[in-house]
Amino acid sequence: MNPILILDYAGIAVFAATGALAASRKQLDIIGFLFFAAFTGVGGGTVRDLILDVPVFWVVNHDYLMICLVTAVLVYFTAHLFESRFKLLLWLDAIGLGAYCVFGAWKALEATGSPVIAVVMGVITASFGGILRDQLAGEPCILLRPEIYITAALAGAATYTGLHLAGLPVMAAAIPAALVAFAIRGGAMKFGWS
Amino acid sequence: MNPILILDYAGIAVFAATGALAASRKQLDIIGFLFFAAFTGVGGGTVRDLILDVPVFWVVNHDYLMICLVTAVLVYFTAHLFESRFKLLLWLDAIGLGAYCVFGAWKALEATGSPVIAVVMGVITASFGGILRDQLAGEPCILLRPEIYITAALAGAATYTGLHLAGLPVMAAAIPAALVAFAIRGGAMKFGWS
Amino acid sequence: MNPILILDYAGIAVFAATGALAASRKQLDIIGFLFFAAFTGVGGGTVRDLILDVPVFWVVNHDYLMICLVTAVLVYFTAHLFESRFKLLLWLDAIGLGAYCVFGAWKALEATGSPVIAVVMGVITASFGGILRDQLAGEPCILLRPEIYITAALAGAATYTGLHLAGLPVMAAAIPAALVAFAIRGGAMKFGWS
Repeated sequence: MNPILILDYAGIAVFAATGALAASRKQLDIIGFLFFAAFTGVGGGTVRDLILDVPVFWVVNHDYLMICLVTAVLVYFTAHLFESRFKLLLWLDAIGLGAYCVFGAWKALEATGSPVIAVVMGVITASFGGILRDQLAGEPCILLRPEIYITAALAGAATYTGLHLAGLPVMAAAIPAALVAFAIRGGAMKFGWS
Repeated sequence: MNPILILDYAGIAVFAATGALAASRKQLDIIGFLFFAAFTGVGGGTVRDLILDVPVFWVVNHDYLMICLVTAVLVYFTAHLFESRFKLLLWLDAIGLGAYCVFGAWKALEATGSPVIAVVMGVITASFGGILRDQLAGEPCILLRPEIYITAALAGAATYTGLHLAGLPVMAAAIPAALVAFAIRGGAMKFGWS
Repeated sequence: MNPILILDYAGIAVFAATGALAASRKQLDIIGFLFFAAFTGVGGGTVRDLILDVPVFWVVNHDYLMICLVTAVLVYFTAHLFESRFKLLLWLDAIGLGAYCVFGAWKALEATGSPVIAVVMGVITASFGGILRDQLAGEPCILLRPEIYITAALAGAATYTGLHLAGLPVMAAAIPAALVAFAIRGGAMKFGWS
């Protein structure tokens, strides 16, 4: 397996978990959990693939939907154990942001060779799942929260693109880039950066 | 004409009518009716076709836009006759749900041969028109209502896919499947299932 | 340069400015300005290109993203100078509407040859950027405001399509059509037409 796919699977799983947590906050049934998990998990990547005009990833490979399904069921049976589901949602979202801004940049760079499009697609991949989740759940959009969000995705996607174009192999560029994005988003939440 | 297209035309017309009723509730002008009717009528199928990477159906065949246009005009001149436009909207939406989850599953099964994608596309086709309508109208998303919604679409799409793969011809699988979805959604509304 | 591209660049720039003004009203940071500007500036055209199944314009030509970037920075440093940012937003939106309904109609007519699709795509191109902006910003959708909006886009797109099919060259049809749309939308705002 291409090791960069680890970021993809991780991004899907944690975004799916945030979707399921949103369903939990809305007291939906198990099918509602599944729908929100799938929508949030694959939403950003779907928009990315449509814009890049490549086959939509989860139509080609059903593993992704299975990840969302399993995640939704796990969250359904465990969500009540967490004291603050919203806080958990935000931290998982930060991990997904880190994984997915890098994976989106990688995929766009492979598909187009353009660093500009790589950075833009990193941001789109990382942010659209959460945007769709918040829109559907009728919650204020995560973009409007005072803490840094898009900036973190932009930094991660730009770090990956810069390091890879500077000659680093994919994973050597991807891991620090994902950590940069997570650290910025996490720091913003933890210390109230804005 | 392919008889399965009856479900497609029916789904379009009733979803278009729900869009026009949403416009009526917002006291929009005739163009607003038309816009909401078209958006709701063809929205789910547009997302389906983009994801399946097949030509968007209403770009290829203008009949669909004509159906939305006629429906919008009819609703414009008759909406005031109904005591509860919201109740009517919900019942029409249930009919559209039944027709469209089956049609979406049929089209996806023809295009990809995958039963998983067939079921997912049935749900997407049946739900996205209503989701877009509610988002645009600034109403709480239909997915968040306590009654069963996605479950009904899932049951209808899965019934069609299962019956057809079990060897039944298209229409023999489609009609009971559409009735299953409508019965579940209608029962949920009528008897308050949740 | 194809002279019709002037309408495209103008549409992008003024829609991007309205997105940046929405970010300003939400007191976002510079990255938030950039994101809203890009989203609003290229959103309508992206939906148009996906539905027409042509390459998404800003993936092919990075100038468009650069226009959004420059516009966002300009608005970031000047927005406080305007007494009413919302009024400015609405007037810029009216200019964007005029430019973009005609450009969308032109592009769809070139791609499909169908006058029906040309008019529909004119409306989609002109309205979706603003719809996405309002959804993201959590503001009531511009379609639900009492003043004429979709009607103006429809009139502009239909005027262009009619004049061009009647034999006028592209720019001779485009300029009056854009003015028609702007005049209808502007008149509706100025004189409270509804």
